[in-house]
Amino acid sequence: MSVVMMLTTLFLLASSACKHEMAKAEHNNVTLGMVRDSLIRQEDTIVYSLIERARFPLNPPTYDPSYASIPGFSGSLLEFFVKQTEAVQAKAGRYDNPEEHPFFPDNLPPSLVPHYKYPEVLHPAAMSININKLIWDMYFNKLLPSFVSPGDDENYALTAARDLECLQAISRRIHYGKLVAEVKFRDERKDYEPAIRAQDRFTLTNLLTFTNVEEAVKKRVAKKAMTFGQEVKLGDDGDKGKYKVDPAIVSGLYADWVIPLTKEVEIDYLLRRLN
Amino acid sequence: MSVVMMLTTLFLLASSACKHEMAKAEHNNVTLGMVRDSLIRQEDTIVYSLIERARFPLNPPTYDPSYASIPGFSGSLLEFFVKQTEAVQAKAGRYDNPEEHPFFPDNLPPSLVPHYKYPEVLHPAAMSININKLIWDMYFNKLLPSFVSPGDDENYALTAARDLECLQAISRRIHYGKLVAEVKFRDERKDYEPAIRAQDRFTLTNLLTFTNVEEAVKKRVAKKAMTFGQEVKLGDDGDKGKYKVDPAIVSGLYADWVIPLTKEVEIDYLLRRLN
Repeated sequence: MSVVMMLTTLFLLASSACKHEMAKAEHNNVTLGMVRDSLIRQEDTIVYSLIERARFPLNPPTYDPSYASIPGFSGSLLEFFVKQTEAVQAKAGRYDNPEEHPFFPDNLPPSLVPHYKYPEVLHPAAMSININKLIWDMYFNKLLPSFVSPGDDENYALTAARDLECLQAISRRIHYGKLVAEVKFRDERKDYEPAIRAQDRFTLTNLLTFTNVEEAVKKRVAKKAMTFGQEVKLGDDGDKGKYKVDPAIVSGLYADWVIPLTKEVEIDYLLRRLN
Repeated sequence: MSVVMMLTTLFLLASSACKHEMAKAEHNNVTLGMVRDSLIRQEDTIVYSLIERARFPLNPPTYDPSYASIPGFSGSLLEFFVKQTEAVQAKAGRYDNPEEHPFFPDNLPPSLVPHYKYPEVLHPAAMSININKLIWDMYFNKLLPSFVSPGDDENYALTAARDLECLQAISRRIHYGKLVAEVKFRDERKDYEPAIRAQDRFTLTNLLTFTNVEEAVKKRVAKKAMTFGQEVKLGDDGDKGKYKVDPAIVSGLYADWVIPLTKEVEIDYLLRRLN
């Protein structure tokens, strides 16, 4: 069974708790189990983060530059919050981990903690791939208005914190495409190399697409939204059919954004894989 | 039916999605529904945050002052991270909300956003009650080692971020005791006033204790740990009996810490309620 076929099968299986796998991959041995476990576990994090954002209504002033009017800062409270929080996290070493991608990478302060040398699993070209601008626009323009209630409860700082959790979870999942692509490339090098040399996006897309896997992922994340977003009561099974975030929204997030944007990252990575 | 009896009953019922209730309580009309919904919804947040922390092993260097050696800072990476993050959140207005209590309240920068006047539901003495030092010690000395695996995967910045989420969720739940006490006081003023004037902790504890409610809460949070912490698979019901955080740990957290410390906050508040 090829690695890709195994991935296809294993994608469908549940995982045990995962660690951050790139960090643990010794001597470049990224295993299928690592990739599988992480992708499945990251679904849970995305669902939890959406449920937690949905505690608050839209809270439009969070995104309105004219509301914040912070001295010395031009932008919305959300932008202020994300930039400042990313600066703290950069100092704490978050972006030393190649799995983490800041939304505002310019002028980030350096890490202040001892440098940990993460194993070099990926081609160095991976460093230059960051599609967080696309993710940001998708999240605020499409996703957010679809799953929170309209309205304003004045909890803008808490709202911004929850938005950042969602953004970071979705960004990590999509950029994990670099590792997925690397594993697929190593297993099927003879198939990928000609397409990469020809810079042929169409063939690469076909090589990377497994419709049955994608369908299973969409179904599984909807099931997770139902399971994690239900009202848990003692003595019965809760309100059936009433969820904190609509499962169809989570399924649609994967169908319309997570899966296609992951593929975008995979292709961006593969096109540079032989540089 | 008295308010306290209704609380007892309603505690057992599931809630619809909650907002941050103190912020929405207009003209001091805190309703039972608000208190009930918030306490139940906050259970979910606590369970999600513990599950997310359990993605990482203990990661001891996060807590070791000799690891971080950050220029100009004396303390662990965790302390650095929490202090810096609380400073950002303070600037964004988080601590303008009386439900939010910083772990390092000294020298927090002022809010930079327009001031929102939260309704004055609580007696002003509430401002002086912050038992986060107790919560911090409980979390790191007792709770954390009980629900994460031993080990080190070098993701210290991510670990610190998850710890702060847990701390904030538990702190908000425990300090919500101020509002619980206020509602109980308003309903049973004639019972509470003599005990408050006598500064009689023992009688106040008895007035505040409803064993059947506490038992139900402990059972419900264990059920939430089972529901939210299960492995969700397509095609079957997952690995029964395998959870990301042991339900007994969550139940024990409530039994040993959340319920007693909430009572501590309630009593601290009531003792000053007539000042």
